Amino acid sequence: MTDPASSGDCKTFLSSTREWVDSSLDRLMPALGTEPSSLHEAMRYSVFGGGKRFRPAIVRLVCRGFGGDDAMAARPAAAIELVHTYSLVHDDLPCMDDDGLRRGRPTCHVVFGEAMATLVGDALQPLGFEILGGCERREVIPELVRVLARASGSVGMVGGQVLDIESSLGEPTVQSVRTLQAMKTAAMIEASAELGALVAGASAHGARVAARFGRSLGLCFQVVDDLLDVTSEAAELGKTPGKDAALGRGTSVRVLGLEGAQAEAQLLAQNAREAALELGWGPNSLAGRLVNFTLDRSS
Amino acid sequence: MTDPASSGDCKTFLSSTREWVDSSLDRLMPALGTEPSSLHEAMRYSVFGGGKRFRPAIVRLVCRGFGGDDAMAARPAAAIELVHTYSLVHDDLPCMDDDGLRRGRPTCHVVFGEAMATLVGDALQPLGFEILGGCERREVIPELVRVLARASGSVGMVGGQVLDIESSLGEPTVQSVRTLQAMKTAAMIEASAELGALVAGASAHGARVAARFGRSLGLCFQVVDDLLDVTSEAAELGKTPGKDAALGRGTSVRVLGLEGAQAEAQLLAQNAREAALELGWGPNSLAGRLVNFTLDRSS
Repeated sequence: MTDPASSGDCKTFLSSTREWVDSSLDRLMPALGTEPSSLHEAMRYSVFGGGKRFRPAIVRLVCRGFGGDDAMAARPAAAIELVHTYSLVHDDLPCMDDDGLRRGRPTCHVVFGEAMATLVGDALQPLGFEILGGCERREVIPELVRVLARASGSVGMVGGQVLDIESSLGEPTVQSVRTLQAMKTAAMIEASAELGALVAGASAHGARVAARFGRSLGLCFQVVDDLLDVTSEAAELGKTPGKDAALGRGTSVRVLGLEGAQAEAQLLAQNAREAALELGWGPNSLAGRLVNFTLDRSS
Repeated sequence: MTDPASSGDCKTFLSSTREWVDSSLDRLMPALGTEPSSLHEAMRYSVFGGGKRFRPAIVRLVCRGFGGDDAMAARPAAAIELVHTYSLVHDDLPCMDDDGLRRGRPTCHVVFGEAMATLVGDALQPLGFEILGGCERREVIPELVRVLARASGSVGMVGGQVLDIESSLGEPTVQSVRTLQAMKTAAMIEASAELGALVAGASAHGARVAARFGRSLGLCFQVVDDLLDVTSEAAELGKTPGKDAALGRGTSVRVLGLEGAQAEAQLLAQNAREAALELGWGPNSLAGRLVNFTLDRSS
């Protein structure tokens, strides 16, 4: 496996990923002014609203780690970011979390109305699959499609959303919170790693280890999110803090306490490091440093 | 091209298609009781709520017409019905058409709540793509995915929904109504025909003519829908009649009058017949009789 570290440090990598994936998205999304122009405007508002582009970074990093180049990773990275973005647009709807602030800006339904926000999400999703369907390495497209579909569907992200909403009805347990986080968040980050591996031509074994790396990293990402929801200010976070507690949701902090959640995040980071090491990506590789970044991030 | 007529008359074909696609859907959808069980229950409620299964019938008919068998058509037929069903669930939401009756039963959000109905739609969509990704004829999967994604996205079905909603804001014209109907309804019926052709191994030319057959049939289907919305009773229609007028939507009847819309439907049926004839499917073929059925249906 190539050491993805060669491409510079972690913050530089993340900021170059933002430019890289935004330029793909700009090219692959319907242009402003094309019909239906109101929908295309609202889609672009939602997609180009900042965001860490964490999932595209995983696709790109893992693709490089398996000897692939950025051109191969461009479509899967754009696709997963579109599906992730649609989920944010729908999560923020009044009938869901009813949130007015996302990535530091008014949410889609606040600006364009609820019907349009529903349709923006509905249109971003097939666009992701359309983009995957156009990957140059045709022979892996069936797997790419299935990985993204499964990760974003009823046994992945959307199922996790359901469990998240239901978690406010009962008393969440450590296990129920882990399950919902594995589905709600980790499934898509796991899929990012798997897409990056598959599109680079990884072996089945390599793709499985990459998926495990992504899953641990994704779980760590979500536990840190729970911690930030308790400890951050809106200006820093770019979304409404304290939301989970206000909604009575099952979070790591709720079931484990502040220190317990911190310990959990560290353990998950360690799992991710071990999977990375199996792929030949040591602690000083870009993958290793991305794990540290995920653990220590402040937004 | 094989004459799809050999398989019996049109009503028999439609009712056997219902059984055939429902059995595929039952097999391909997450089982009742699997987690998240509330979501899977609501997904099944929405999918197994009756419905004509018109799109699966087109997939099956066209696949047969190109010499394919029903086993080949099963996954594309299930996939397009799932995507169609998600669109109905979202269309009925309070922030969209706010409708309480669909296929003769209370709509998903009335039974399961708005958040769940939003998530049901969000989960049915990737399931459709996952099912396409598992087709046996792997080499056409990239095209199948792109056809379904494009037909259901911002330049197809969802874009048509936006134009439909916006049509109540201004004064719709014949042209604007035709455009919204081509996107909202005909795109998915066109895609059904294209999926059936592609999965049966049709040539690019054959697939294009099949798409044209589907497009004309789909436009005819929607104009007849507009007529039924004006002339039918709820019990017969299985959904709320008079809805388009109540919502101030742009319909064929509104811009052409009752007789004008009837003439338009007949012209579109004729276009569909001509495309069918190019494929060797004459007026007495199943395709020809399905055109007549589409024109004369009462629900």
